[in-house]
Amino acid sequence: MAFRATLLTLYPEMFPGHLGHSLAGRALERGQWSLDAVQIRDFAEDKHRTVDDTPAGGGAGMVLRADILSRAIDHVSRDDGRPRLLMSPRGRPLSQARVREIAAGPGAVIVCGRFEGVDQRVIDARALEEVSIGDYILSGGEPAALTLLDAVVRILPGVMGNALSGVHESFEGGLLEHPHYTRPQVFEERDIPAVLTSGNHGAIERWRRAEAERLTRERRPDLLSQPVTK
Amino acid sequence: MAFRATLLTLYPEMFPGHLGHSLAGRALERGQWSLDAVQIRDFAEDKHRTVDDTPAGGGAGMVLRADILSRAIDHVSRDDGRPRLLMSPRGRPLSQARVREIAAGPGAVIVCGRFEGVDQRVIDARALEEVSIGDYILSGGEPAALTLLDAVVRILPGVMGNALSGVHESFEGGLLEHPHYTRPQVFEERDIPAVLTSGNHGAIERWRRAEAERLTRERRPDLLSQPVTK
Repeated sequence: MAFRATLLTLYPEMFPGHLGHSLAGRALERGQWSLDAVQIRDFAEDKHRTVDDTPAGGGAGMVLRADILSRAIDHVSRDDGRPRLLMSPRGRPLSQARVREIAAGPGAVIVCGRFEGVDQRVIDARALEEVSIGDYILSGGEPAALTLLDAVVRILPGVMGNALSGVHESFEGGLLEHPHYTRPQVFEERDIPAVLTSGNHGAIERWRRAEAERLTRERRPDLLSQPVTK
Repeated sequence: MAFRATLLTLYPEMFPGHLGHSLAGRALERGQWSLDAVQIRDFAEDKHRTVDDTPAGGGAGMVLRADILSRAIDHVSRDDGRPRLLMSPRGRPLSQARVREIAAGPGAVIVCGRFEGVDQRVIDARALEEVSIGDYILSGGEPAALTLLDAVVRILPGVMGNALSGVHESFEGGLLEHPHYTRPQVFEERDIPAVLTSGNHGAIERWRRAEAERLTRERRPDLLSQPVTK
């Protein structure tokens, strides 16, 4: 069974978006994964297809209703083993380790919030896993879902082919990646570091490792204090 | 002058993507911001429009050439005051504070990497600011650029209107946001917390603050040890 992504959204027209192009798009056409964007409004009960209401306790914005969203969730996911994710800035930060876990499974049901948020009771009752792609605020869950799926789809079997190595990458070993160089040999009076054109593979490997460690220390010392999750 | 985004990419067809819909899409149509996706291959010099070459020192993947990318950058940004960003997992993690800074400026030039990476010399020579949207690997810079722009565009003047509050949001005060509830009063035997329907605005405010602190402590203790960048 190919990886199966089901999105619950108020903007199904945003999908597949950028995932319809390049490697992810070709894999989608080949059936190596599938994407189904379901309109939450289809589960409303009034003629205006209302899905939200004002927040209990007052305040700005609107909140997605638990009863309507739960119907939509139940319609697309009945114990099929797929994680049910809610894209939310309150969630656990997405990591490459979690991306690998999701990619190894049967797919994902992804709820895209809009407005002020989602009624907490549907998060609790349907055990939604809140996932954050970063510490910034988006217009809704859709850009976050597309980002998460891009990360997942690129590591599905057969998608990348030989286009990317998939091994020497930032975070895969707990370090940021070393700098890259290619031809021309001289660019605006800047040379490629001599070691890289020395032909000494041991020295090249040591240089790259040292540069990766230097960059990580300078930019992301927080990564060095985390357990390696390879 | 409206906020002006220029993307350098090998996949201009990925833009505007999801930014062509909803609030961002309507603001784009109204001219409240602009997006120009420029094909990096237009700056290649051979008939195959080659933009990359093998990494100096060996290894898998391909590296974007400094000479070609620098020509593309120079063509679209000549001291126009816009930051030049390179979407990269090696970059500084994007924060809501940086989103606000970018949104307050004239726009952004955003380089979307593909393949293994970008020649370090063009990063140095053109002072590219490496920005990471999170600790995971994407197929390229395009999904990251679309995510960053979504965060920026939603806070541009006039874009959100009254659709979102823009005040009580995760990170804006250094805390995750409190839970939300709305009608119906009872959902699958779960009530809205009584305080929220009490009409006691002081008590509601205290409850929300306490919940925001609790959630942040449970899920993101790292945020509590950071200086508030409001």
